[in-house]
Amino acid sequence: MNKISFLLIAMLFTATTFAQQALWGGQDIISPEIHSNKTVTFRLNAPLANKVEITGDFLPTQKMQTPMGEFDTPGNAELVKNDKGVWEFTTPNALSPELYSYTFIVDGVKVTDPNNVYMIRDVASVTSIFIIDGERADLYKVNDVPHGTVARRWYNSPTLNMDRRITIYTPAGYEQSKQEYPVFYLLHGAGGDEEAWIALGRTSQILDNLIAQGKAQPMIVVMTNGNVGQQAAPGESAKGMYKPSFMGDTRMDGDCEKAFPDVIKFVESNYRVKKGKANRAIAGLSMGGFHSMHISKQYPDLFDYVGLFSAAIMPREGVTSEIYQNIDEKLKVQFAKKPKLYYIAIGTADFLFDANTDFRKKLDENNYPYTYYETGEGHIWKNWRIYLTEFAPMLFK
Amino acid sequence: MNKISFLLIAMLFTATTFAQQALWGGQDIISPEIHSNKTVTFRLNAPLANKVEITGDFLPTQKMQTPMGEFDTPGNAELVKNDKGVWEFTTPNALSPELYSYTFIVDGVKVTDPNNVYMIRDVASVTSIFIIDGERADLYKVNDVPHGTVARRWYNSPTLNMDRRITIYTPAGYEQSKQEYPVFYLLHGAGGDEEAWIALGRTSQILDNLIAQGKAQPMIVVMTNGNVGQQAAPGESAKGMYKPSFMGDTRMDGDCEKAFPDVIKFVESNYRVKKGKANRAIAGLSMGGFHSMHISKQYPDLFDYVGLFSAAIMPREGVTSEIYQNIDEKLKVQFAKKPKLYYIAIGTADFLFDANTDFRKKLDENNYPYTYYETGEGHIWKNWRIYLTEFAPMLFK
Repeated sequence: MNKISFLLIAMLFTATTFAQQALWGGQDIISPEIHSNKTVTFRLNAPLANKVEITGDFLPTQKMQTPMGEFDTPGNAELVKNDKGVWEFTTPNALSPELYSYTFIVDGVKVTDPNNVYMIRDVASVTSIFIIDGERADLYKVNDVPHGTVARRWYNSPTLNMDRRITIYTPAGYEQSKQEYPVFYLLHGAGGDEEAWIALGRTSQILDNLIAQGKAQPMIVVMTNGNVGQQAAPGESAKGMYKPSFMGDTRMDGDCEKAFPDVIKFVESNYRVKKGKANRAIAGLSMGGFHSMHISKQYPDLFDYVGLFSAAIMPREGVTSEIYQNIDEKLKVQFAKKPKLYYIAIGTADFLFDANTDFRKKLDENNYPYTYYETGEGHIWKNWRIYLTEFAPMLFK
Repeated sequence: MNKISFLLIAMLFTATTFAQQALWGGQDIISPEIHSNKTVTFRLNAPLANKVEITGDFLPTQKMQTPMGEFDTPGNAELVKNDKGVWEFTTPNALSPELYSYTFIVDGVKVTDPNNVYMIRDVASVTSIFIIDGERADLYKVNDVPHGTVARRWYNSPTLNMDRRITIYTPAGYEQSKQEYPVFYLLHGAGGDEEAWIALGRTSQILDNLIAQGKAQPMIVVMTNGNVGQQAAPGESAKGMYKPSFMGDTRMDGDCEKAFPDVIKFVESNYRVKKGKANRAIAGLSMGGFHSMHISKQYPDLFDYVGLFSAAIMPREGVTSEIYQNIDEKLKVQFAKKPKLYYIAIGTADFLFDANTDFRKKLDENNYPYTYYETGEGHIWKNWRIYLTEFAPMLFK
């Protein structure tokens, strides 16, 4: 038997490539290209298109009028076609360190960048992403440090009478170690699921990096699914590949809070964890901040660390769950037990800013201590990644 | 403190939606829509586009001429614009059960379907996917059965002097059980990585379903990264978010085979596994089939089950690794030790079909027993999913 020829082995590598180029339009161009001066060039091979634009969170925001008020939305810019039919846009200025999202608009159709395989899904929207490194954004990158394990598992919730999916980060060294670890429960917002923090929030990268730098304690991070009408993220349950929606299976009726001890019981009987209030933290964004507030006051002996990131605070009218009864009394009990950290973070442009100001006023009036962290901008993942990098280092110390 | 108004809570759900719709063109249309008669409608809201086509593996293939010969590529079809600017195409016939891939072509630009969040990446190409259920394709779906755990971990390879990423499936019940499990090592092809089988191959769904049906033994499935020049899948190592390429970090120089015992040692010292040849299987597609052949003959006491899926067989000329020396003698030793299953599967249109025919001739001439499974079509994931569903039930029985 002869050795196969170089031609044949080359075919092994390239046959599929040929087919793919025909099939999927593999364009041999680089986009985005991050230059050494931190300007970025975006490219799209579209000789037949009439107009190609880009919209992304690195462009100056625009005001959008809606029936519910004025919102900031990312701006857009036009790409220019060169003589080869490749459209290009280069940012006029260097971009500051951050994880950015963008899409192209090809003759009016918003699409991801076909030359960039890195994308994240936020509810039903998928966008292309890239990272400008430096400063805090270095925490969002995969760096040459020891890496934790990320597992997607299923557990049973007796309270909800349902098998549910959960994402669990265990820090580097967990498997070889005999030590016990504290646990940080990290909750998503409305429309999100157990994939939100690990994908959009860069949880595993942030924790790997903070732990490697000695800035955060090694800890387990548990990312639950807070939609009690849902077993798992879209596509990950027997409901199949349906189109996700913002309301979807999201409810704020007290059941998520009521069932939360099921999660803790599962984690503490399946992982090598330090038990007790001093070794548990809970935080969440938006609806997850709401859940964190109500879970932590409902069970005042469970969490010494509570984080409200751009949190909704009060339940909606008409919800009758006992979880939301006697809120003031429950807060009184919770703060009498002196949690080590009650952390509130919000952006000044967040539509929940006033609700959080009201809540802080209440805490102030009662001399309930808390840590407050304010950023610019609004109800966006950029802020939630920042809050995670600020909150995690304060835990379990 | 008053309960917040229904308006505010509605905003919590919808503010981001508004912003997203402006930003990312959230189109309130359904695509793909799978009808009860198993025809499928694809839709794209593109009032300004001049032409919208779809290309996908459910359309009749076309012949493409290339410098390296003629290849089959998926055909395409034109969508038709309605008076609202929404383009539509409905398949003329019912589609048979399968996992299908497609993209749109908007004025010449190949893009994923912005209304379908389900996508898979194959090397540098991302396509939208959907499943027509029934028959074998039911194994590719998430069904209401017990689910295993999928973990992304890192291990150290002393042979390569490198920390490397690995994907490990443990079957439902593994964590609660005290029993030991057999291990199936499942290897990707050129251009792939430790994400390929779990994403494109639907490994966790196939194993969950086969095990729940009692057709496969509960087993651990270990999906390695076979590119010894690479620590992890693109975006998952300190190399950052580079554009994947087909050759990229892929090498076929013997080092993957040489370092494979490091993987086994890691798995057997970190998981509750049954040891010994009878409890180990190895299979792979294309380059992974090549690796499986050479690893299993190099270490004839390690694997009782060997699967070559559309495998490359012989090393390329000029590679000097001792792994590829004395192939005939090593095969003689391997088959003298009577592996329980030596499985060869290939499609009749595969460009490696002749190489596999030659290899089978050699096995026949030497009276080395093997199981042969032939399908139509070529070097495609559809075939590799089929081979996995055929191979896994034969293991560890």
